[in-house]
Amino acid sequence: MAINETHRADLTSWVESAQTPGSDFPIQNLPFGIFKRAGRAETARVGAAIGDHIVDISACVDEGLITGAAAVPAERCRAPTLNDLMELGGDAASSLRRVLSDLLRVGSLAYRNDPGISRRVLVPMYEAEMRLPAHIGDYSDFYASIDHARNVGSMLRPDNPLLPNYRYVPVGYHGRASSIVPSGTHVRRPTGQIREDPDEPPTFVPTKRLDYEMELGIFIGPGNAQGSAIPILNADRHVFGVCLLNDWSARDVQAWEYQPLGPFLAKSFATTISPWVITLEALEPYRAPAYVRPDGDPAPLPHLLWESDQRRGGFDITLEVYVRTTAMRQRRQDPALVSRGHFTTMYWTVAQLVAHHASNGCNLRAGDLLGSGTVSGPEKESRGSLIERTWRGREPLRLPTGEMRTFLEDGDEVIMHGYCERSGFARIGFGECSGMIIPAL
Amino acid sequence: MAINETHRADLTSWVESAQTPGSDFPIQNLPFGIFKRAGRAETARVGAAIGDHIVDISACVDEGLITGAAAVPAERCRAPTLNDLMELGGDAASSLRRVLSDLLRVGSLAYRNDPGISRRVLVPMYEAEMRLPAHIGDYSDFYASIDHARNVGSMLRPDNPLLPNYRYVPVGYHGRASSIVPSGTHVRRPTGQIREDPDEPPTFVPTKRLDYEMELGIFIGPGNAQGSAIPILNADRHVFGVCLLNDWSARDVQAWEYQPLGPFLAKSFATTISPWVITLEALEPYRAPAYVRPDGDPAPLPHLLWESDQRRGGFDITLEVYVRTTAMRQRRQDPALVSRGHFTTMYWTVAQLVAHHASNGCNLRAGDLLGSGTVSGPEKESRGSLIERTWRGREPLRLPTGEMRTFLEDGDEVIMHGYCERSGFARIGFGECSGMIIPAL
Repeated sequence: MAINETHRADLTSWVESAQTPGSDFPIQNLPFGIFKRAGRAETARVGAAIGDHIVDISACVDEGLITGAAAVPAERCRAPTLNDLMELGGDAASSLRRVLSDLLRVGSLAYRNDPGISRRVLVPMYEAEMRLPAHIGDYSDFYASIDHARNVGSMLRPDNPLLPNYRYVPVGYHGRASSIVPSGTHVRRPTGQIREDPDEPPTFVPTKRLDYEMELGIFIGPGNAQGSAIPILNADRHVFGVCLLNDWSARDVQAWEYQPLGPFLAKSFATTISPWVITLEALEPYRAPAYVRPDGDPAPLPHLLWESDQRRGGFDITLEVYVRTTAMRQRRQDPALVSRGHFTTMYWTVAQLVAHHASNGCNLRAGDLLGSGTVSGPEKESRGSLIERTWRGREPLRLPTGEMRTFLEDGDEVIMHGYCERSGFARIGFGECSGMIIPAL
Repeated sequence: MAINETHRADLTSWVESAQTPGSDFPIQNLPFGIFKRAGRAETARVGAAIGDHIVDISACVDEGLITGAAAVPAERCRAPTLNDLMELGGDAASSLRRVLSDLLRVGSLAYRNDPGISRRVLVPMYEAEMRLPAHIGDYSDFYASIDHARNVGSMLRPDNPLLPNYRYVPVGYHGRASSIVPSGTHVRRPTGQIREDPDEPPTFVPTKRLDYEMELGIFIGPGNAQGSAIPILNADRHVFGVCLLNDWSARDVQAWEYQPLGPFLAKSFATTISPWVITLEALEPYRAPAYVRPDGDPAPLPHLLWESDQRRGGFDITLEVYVRTTAMRQRRQDPALVSRGHFTTMYWTVAQLVAHHASNGCNLRAGDLLGSGTVSGPEKESRGSLIERTWRGREPLRLPTGEMRTFLEDGDEVIMHGYCERSGFARIGFGECSGMIIPAL
């Protein structure tokens, strides 16, 4: 994909809220999601975000506003998940995005001819319920930030923080698909086995070390047949788009259970994702070089190395984590920023994760979700989890209310944001990925 | 569930092949699966195995042969997966199984009145294609044989084979759902990163240590809501039935990738399951005590301990692995038996696996699949994987052809069988779980 007409910074929309400074959804973004109007007997369907509204794509079809190449992807937008659209691939989504861009921009012929369409195709976001964007067949989670791997590794293995495979293998593991929930869903504090004293048996109690992980979620578009790989130079064509992902983690459960087969119940109680999927096309202006490996690091093996991916396989996405405590809600205070990281610090590119995942012939399917792993950079303020931010609880965070946090307390809300900025281009955002902790049963 | 009329050893069926000695599918079994007749434009649907035939349950409904409480579950048998039937729970499946038992037994009123029904409701197995029994939302794999864990652990950590969590935590990890295939599907040798020399970089080559793992697959029936647990005394009600499962594994890939997040590409290229799901009710006569922990082992924590589960949470299932090489096929020789294990040797019961899985509030859904982990007992001959059977290749197996095997070669077919026998009851079997290795791309 390349930068095109839909990315032009001077485009504005007749949906005025799309021009609000700081809006996540200007006309240059147009992410896809699944919505229905609350309290109505209607089926969920595909919409695109514009300002504080949702474009009901099925309504646009019914109005005769979508023709040509975009008609096929638009027809698939009647479904209650994005899977059918994802399966069609980036060119189809791109043609749909272009039609929406034409329809929504100032000067749009359709709008000039009949301004009444705004009432008929737009739904205010406050009237809508957002669903999971896709039926997620499989969810895999990676570990692509070397700073995160080094931080966590140094807590568990001070003399050997980074294992020898890290610089060769985009390390990942399978996650739980059933417990992925959309932003806004409460998360119950899980109970699990923890062992606080190595000389005593473990106990089965509510976790005392509940954490979040700030990740990017990557949705697969067209899949691959089982037994065939995805060459790295095709990997982007298998990616539909990205969202925010909170990989909630019970650190004490994880420490006790994770050997030798990896995290299981420490993660499987809930994973929260943001409802809007930002297409690869919308991200095109914010591409960046892949991580530059320091001298001494090996080059990726040939099947994970492609010159174009090294040059522009990264994405300049800023990722922020806020916490809102019960006290903040009571005092009507703003949530507190606890970290700000950058996806450019990731050791492995999205294309490398996809190519690696399918390199053994594992079949990826449209709607499958990949987590990037916690996005942490070299600075303290960029660490995307509390275990890193508070260094396993040894350096508690002081919040603006004066409250201290090592791990999450009941009533804490974790709110994630993401955005891309580049001079000469519009700012686009990801919307919100939030969840509040409710007490253990 | 209890032993009832359907288990009586003296029951015989008017489907004569059900009485063939050694048949896996006598009238006491009646497992469910998904079939369609090959080469016909018809949709796949639910059938029950009887001898060398399949009872087409939708055809029985159409013939008016299924009434009463069984009508509801029978109506769900028109679906192309068992999920809708699984969701209804064991009592519904039991009522359907009783009606089928009545219908198929010698003396059946319906058959006496109209022997023509045999033509209209039975499909010969050789005319049918079997599909995956369910849409598998999530697949989790456990590690419930202490002998397997000790064997593999002692190869990787000779001084510390069993980690301290093993006797407390039914260790498990998430597996890949997309690459689960039905018995008979060829399995392509995966390519992956392996590091043979610790002083050299890894290489990306076809695996040299391709292995199988003989496991029991456990299908979930009714699920649990996210955030709620499944108490161990209810766990059986959430299990629909079991099948055979081959957790194909690339040992060299696994050794290099598995730290710190567990197996990933070493397993995700393929998992094969047998097509017939043996219901918990059919297994009732073969229940056995849970593993008796030796002195010094801790008792399970209270949430994993239930007196009735200790007394009868095990299943006396014999599990056999055969290998058929290209040379055997050419010489028309029988496959060679390479191991015979017993599910009674498992350290954790099925109910404990289910209760543990949901103990953090993770939602299980109808059709989810749990692997038991490799079933290995204390004797060499009972080890359910080649890495154990040949002790990491150090003790090659001599096959009846004179061929030697450390790991699997291209053209090797791995064939798994399972059966239950108990004096005073019929022998019931699991059918076949097979797959042949085809060369890497």
